[in-house]
Amino acid sequence: MRMKTSKLILFFCLFSVASISYLFAQQTGSIVYVDAKELTLIGKANSTPHLYHRIDTLQYQGMPAVVKELFTNSAGLGIVFTTNSNAISARWSTVNPKTGSNMTAIAHKGLDLYIKRDGKWIFAGVGRPTANSTTAQIVENMEDGEKECLLYLPLYDEIKRLEIGVSADSFIKPSADPFCKKVLVYGSSITQGASASRPGMAYPARLSRKSGINFINLGLSGNGKMHQPVADMLSDMEADAYILDCAANPSPDEITQRTGYLVKTIRDRHPDAPIIMIQSVVRESGNFDMKINKRVSGQNRNFKLEFEKLKSAGIKDLYFIEGELLGADHEGTTDGVHPNDLGFDRILDVIERPILEILQQYGI
Amino acid sequence: MRMKTSKLILFFCLFSVASISYLFAQQTGSIVYVDAKELTLIGKANSTPHLYHRIDTLQYQGMPAVVKELFTNSAGLGIVFTTNSNAISARWSTVNPKTGSNMTAIAHKGLDLYIKRDGKWIFAGVGRPTANSTTAQIVENMEDGEKECLLYLPLYDEIKRLEIGVSADSFIKPSADPFCKKVLVYGSSITQGASASRPGMAYPARLSRKSGINFINLGLSGNGKMHQPVADMLSDMEADAYILDCAANPSPDEITQRTGYLVKTIRDRHPDAPIIMIQSVVRESGNFDMKINKRVSGQNRNFKLEFEKLKSAGIKDLYFIEGELLGADHEGTTDGVHPNDLGFDRILDVIERPILEILQQYGI
Repeated sequence: MRMKTSKLILFFCLFSVASISYLFAQQTGSIVYVDAKELTLIGKANSTPHLYHRIDTLQYQGMPAVVKELFTNSAGLGIVFTTNSNAISARWSTVNPKTGSNMTAIAHKGLDLYIKRDGKWIFAGVGRPTANSTTAQIVENMEDGEKECLLYLPLYDEIKRLEIGVSADSFIKPSADPFCKKVLVYGSSITQGASASRPGMAYPARLSRKSGINFINLGLSGNGKMHQPVADMLSDMEADAYILDCAANPSPDEITQRTGYLVKTIRDRHPDAPIIMIQSVVRESGNFDMKINKRVSGQNRNFKLEFEKLKSAGIKDLYFIEGELLGADHEGTTDGVHPNDLGFDRILDVIERPILEILQQYGI
Repeated sequence: MRMKTSKLILFFCLFSVASISYLFAQQTGSIVYVDAKELTLIGKANSTPHLYHRIDTLQYQGMPAVVKELFTNSAGLGIVFTTNSNAISARWSTVNPKTGSNMTAIAHKGLDLYIKRDGKWIFAGVGRPTANSTTAQIVENMEDGEKECLLYLPLYDEIKRLEIGVSADSFIKPSADPFCKKVLVYGSSITQGASASRPGMAYPARLSRKSGINFINLGLSGNGKMHQPVADMLSDMEADAYILDCAANPSPDEITQRTGYLVKTIRDRHPDAPIIMIQSVVRESGNFDMKINKRVSGQNRNFKLEFEKLKSAGIKDLYFIEGELLGADHEGTTDGVHPNDLGFDRILDVIERPILEILQQYGI
């Protein structure tokens, strides 16, 4: 069953490029803008009526309103394309009037471009938002030749419109999805990407670039609470593996009440897929605040207890990752809660290797 | 000469606490607010008429207007105090209406609190700005007992007013400056702190906490260009050492024209103080933009050439630090120019040890 799904995914990964066409669109000065809809959208669990939403929230009616709204944020989504242009710009519109005090506007509502060089994704430039409608140069003065590009969309905002600009005398065409397989990562604001400095620094995106595996960002800021309708939605999705990084938002009691249902409902629908639980909650705000400290200890303790109960109950292919996630110097967060890029780097130091080793066991 | 100055500084470091008084101020509910002017301000090169400006810009008239304005930003300044309160809050006002797209509002116009534990400064909480006038809880639910506190001020804004709030039944009093000696760090936006995630993560502040030495932040966003009046100002200041991290803003030609004057004028006034040049310019935006790439190469080449010329000309106690400052994965910036906290951590990996070793040679 698993192999069949994987082969199907591989087929799409390799051959979705078959529909490539050369695109030319509205011209402004020496820049041609192409609607990103004409290029390749990556990072989605399933297709949705609104292209830049992560989930079709009409399909999953029972979810809390705030969860539905968060799934309109484009965290983890990206546009891949190939161009021989020497410069790349973008025009895009977002919705939220404000940026959280713990995030950069680039991460919240901006764009983040990588270009492939020698088989690796290398940072190329950002789209700095000036307002909810922005036109911005992302990179210019590049050498001639084809570039395979990956443009990450905003982590905490909804994209209403996106166009990519290239030189009028160049081409732009959709690329094949560079990432294969499908690993769903369900979690909190930390999964969604707060407080990475730019969209490509959210940890599921970093994992994808490093491994070539498609880690799908299903982080829900403040609301990764394992609500039953969300558990049902997750189990309804076909994936090669399921990562549950969702101990940060529910109370210790909610963790006890809800973890079993979440894991079992995924297991019921996907008998062979590995399920990886991550004990991600570290709160530097709890260094001195004893109430926060106690809550976090309770969350971590109960998440681990639920894992052990589930293992004892015979749930197979279930894993638990833990460690000193933010290092020992207490400098790994922006606000005591959300990792800065240093904190995310340390989280990857702990979780990347075990995750990839587990996935490898399953041929992922 | 040097020893005499050092002893004088040490005297002030140890005994400025002599004027400690217990303070009680305006009461709001169960919180008492004390004007931060009544506590101990640290991180200043010299005293200024406006308490929260870094430099007395009336004293140094010849500097460009933009430089004067940047010296009104409170980068590197902090308030130290001791309290037995279980909660700490703040009321503060800043000036700038906007936050740059590559910074968090917390870094730009927010506050960042550390508390000493077992001889180390440990992150305790942030003051999240909601507007230019904010009242915010920074930390609460702390254990009983005295806490030695260090509150960093905004990196990119001017503080007009600042009050610290503690429980009405507790005391708050000024602490002694925890940092000794005085090392001036002159540089660009990278020195000023863009794009650290919060004020305490700017690299001079991190160096101070780790070493106990007072690294003074004289970073000037976009304007650390070694202007002659700024060189004259720097040389006018008494310090134990001078760090020149200023190759990022001037053009390659300006570096050739201005570095000699800056170094020589400091050397003339301070014959024995070490002068440390840092080759800090890395531009991830130059990964593909060949024009930026070329400019950065020119800046770094010319800064190094000037160092070699000055050494050949017999300037003593002059040092040069270089290395792979942002690592090799190109992920160390927020926008291609300004380090994120991961980038700053890597910069410290390169510069911290050589800086401290040089300072140690001089008894600093």
